[in-house]
Amino acid sequence: MEFLYRSSANISDSDLIELNELLVDYKAHLVRVANRGGYEDKESSINLPVDEVLLRDVLAASEAKSERALKYIIVIGIGGSNLGTKAIYDSLYGFFDQFEPDRFPKVLFADTNDPKTITKLTDFLITHIQDPSEFVVNSISKSGGTTETIANTEFIVGALRERFGDTVYERMVVTSDAGSPLWTSAVERGITTLSIPKNVGGRFSVFSSVGLFPLALLGLDVRALREGARAMRKRCLSEPIQTNPAMLSAIILFSHLKKGKTINDNFIFHPELESLGKWYRQLMGESIGKEKDWDGNIVHTGITPRVSIGSTDLHSVGQLYLGGPQDKTTTFIYTKRVASTTLMPRRRLFPDLIESLHDKSLDQIMRAILEGTKIAYLKNKLPFMEVILPDISEYSLGEFLQFKMIEMMYLGSLLRVNAFDQPNVELYKIETKRILEEEMS
Amino acid sequence: MEFLYRSSANISDSDLIELNELLVDYKAHLVRVANRGGYEDKESSINLPVDEVLLRDVLAASEAKSERALKYIIVIGIGGSNLGTKAIYDSLYGFFDQFEPDRFPKVLFADTNDPKTITKLTDFLITHIQDPSEFVVNSISKSGGTTETIANTEFIVGALRERFGDTVYERMVVTSDAGSPLWTSAVERGITTLSIPKNVGGRFSVFSSVGLFPLALLGLDVRALREGARAMRKRCLSEPIQTNPAMLSAIILFSHLKKGKTINDNFIFHPELESLGKWYRQLMGESIGKEKDWDGNIVHTGITPRVSIGSTDLHSVGQLYLGGPQDKTTTFIYTKRVASTTLMPRRRLFPDLIESLHDKSLDQIMRAILEGTKIAYLKNKLPFMEVILPDISEYSLGEFLQFKMIEMMYLGSLLRVNAFDQPNVELYKIETKRILEEEMS
Repeated sequence: MEFLYRSSANISDSDLIELNELLVDYKAHLVRVANRGGYEDKESSINLPVDEVLLRDVLAASEAKSERALKYIIVIGIGGSNLGTKAIYDSLYGFFDQFEPDRFPKVLFADTNDPKTITKLTDFLITHIQDPSEFVVNSISKSGGTTETIANTEFIVGALRERFGDTVYERMVVTSDAGSPLWTSAVERGITTLSIPKNVGGRFSVFSSVGLFPLALLGLDVRALREGARAMRKRCLSEPIQTNPAMLSAIILFSHLKKGKTINDNFIFHPELESLGKWYRQLMGESIGKEKDWDGNIVHTGITPRVSIGSTDLHSVGQLYLGGPQDKTTTFIYTKRVASTTLMPRRRLFPDLIESLHDKSLDQIMRAILEGTKIAYLKNKLPFMEVILPDISEYSLGEFLQFKMIEMMYLGSLLRVNAFDQPNVELYKIETKRILEEEMS
Repeated sequence: MEFLYRSSANISDSDLIELNELLVDYKAHLVRVANRGGYEDKESSINLPVDEVLLRDVLAASEAKSERALKYIIVIGIGGSNLGTKAIYDSLYGFFDQFEPDRFPKVLFADTNDPKTITKLTDFLITHIQDPSEFVVNSISKSGGTTETIANTEFIVGALRERFGDTVYERMVVTSDAGSPLWTSAVERGITTLSIPKNVGGRFSVFSSVGLFPLALLGLDVRALREGARAMRKRCLSEPIQTNPAMLSAIILFSHLKKGKTINDNFIFHPELESLGKWYRQLMGESIGKEKDWDGNIVHTGITPRVSIGSTDLHSVGQLYLGGPQDKTTTFIYTKRVASTTLMPRRRLFPDLIESLHDKSLDQIMRAILEGTKIAYLKNKLPFMEVILPDISEYSLGEFLQFKMIEMMYLGSLLRVNAFDQPNVELYKIETKRILEEEMS
């Protein structure tokens, strides 16, 4: 993964060096967390990619549930429990599911409790599955008490049980904090469980059993994913500021936030990476969107993350970005250019329209649009960074995910907020719970 | 459609009445545009739902291309050329395509020139279509010169032609401004064309042939769509401020923008409406995201639109919304509550977990989450409006789309910007064109 910013991020070397000073201690802390290993610190998620016991457990569970007939992995989880898995699955396969109906296994995600969606999903499963070996249900809730996940598990497993009997429990895996209500109930019923280290929060859990199990079961190269993450951890913990992508990105975002750029647009030039953007939306939204700083002062701080898809969104919000309020820092995300094989058909239907398209490949056209966009941003002095993935693979996704998680830790440190909690969502949960209890008959 | 704001939008009656004054003349102008009919004004899109000639032409074209065997309507267009169609299709059907593989016809959308997507799409079509009667290609570009749409048309039609010969042209419809390069080329080749009134811009074109043709071909009730739009046009042009949803929403957004709320979050509690949110994202982004006001002053104004899905995004950006910067005005969008049939299974798998879920329906759970969220917003004094659709149907989508387009006209007037142009995107287009031409061999 390459990270570019020098000519476009509108930050001076002296600012970089000054802000870097603020991170010296925290960087040393992260190095200590990595050296110590294990899961005793809030930042311990950085140790997941080197945890061999975790890998062994996940691969064993995956092996145990694997079947040649496997068609559907049903991931029931919301927020940190499914966004990482969905990011990786959609990037590599899921976005193209519609065009590849005969490729299996597929992952189906159930997050919210939308009645229409859940009804159609269960109807589909019951019609298209002939035997329990064709599915695995993976219910994931860190706390073990997430309303949506418990409810969806009851509905979906209930429907499958009606069709296949209690044997469906053998096709279930529950992922939760060891000892949580869900975990305990699953153990009591003899359902396979996987645990999550206490200090690894949902949005930092993609490299834990939360993400690894369904991805391994799908047949993805989870070793390469971890390898990419490890390589990136090394860069982000040991490189000096000039070549450290996580520190650079955090400092650039922080510096522009201080100048009123309250939005970070992740402008991704590959449509299949939209879910990766949505994963980051949670990571940034929850980690630094905070009412209070770590001293308890009311600060209402944060950067509002966005996901845009190139070139689609140039025809949607491009006008806003180029002409509207200058309140955004942009992160362009794309892959290294590769030799393309998809050339414009020689015999064109409309040869007179845009003659410059003759003999071009789709890739060339996309590059021209991307380059044109970058030039427009430069001319308008809109600050941006560039994240260039070598390709879209397990390894490079591992790099990206780890890069962003460490970036967020640095950014939390710069903003002096706890990047690992989410206290303000409790309010709506309490109200929801009260309403559900009042309605109990 | 109901519109609620009184107890939650943090706007006083006196502010409403004062800001209403600013809209008196513009409202009278819109009434004149509607009374005059036709397409002579920038606002003429409001006359599309009463245009009987348009309806006749679209239904005739749809009738001519309709086949019992029709399986795939391939919509090639980007931005205003596909977002409205996609909003309606996904809301009613598309979001569930994955779970309903045997329901036809389906709409497939090709917008950007992503090589992987377009290759997989064409491979899919060539493998899954046996006869030209099974598809219609609808290429849509208002200007007739949109790079992505011309390129995708060449690739997709080229691939289909290789399989089925020149007969594929009979299965094509081109939608464009009459006389545009694309329109002229299509006419020359005997390809069916549909035109768009000059003064109807892409983001206001959903009720023109742009949206109506593919939706009619799909078998949707386009008459009900237009009926909903007409009822809403009447409300938004004739009702006084107190009951006029478009004026109220525009004034509330404007008033909070002046107080620093630069983001409008559309928090939709139905996942299948995400594309409807993305349609609005363009409408708001392009219409009021402006460098200059109508006197030519540099203003860099606008509101940055967002789409959030409930309850999914409560587990993602909920923390940011409730605790982070107070820079957002929220529009909750949901449907009226209906009697539910999806009750929690009597025999629960985990009866001890969240006992309040016993005997609840999914709908009840979703309502409790929505109500809990609204209470949390109220307690945090976060301003919001509520848009309550009677259901998700052609009629109510027609209402919503027309409501938002007229809201945007009022908002443009309050901000003193031209809501109908998009001058700043030209810059990247010019650069892209230059790059493509330089690369010509």
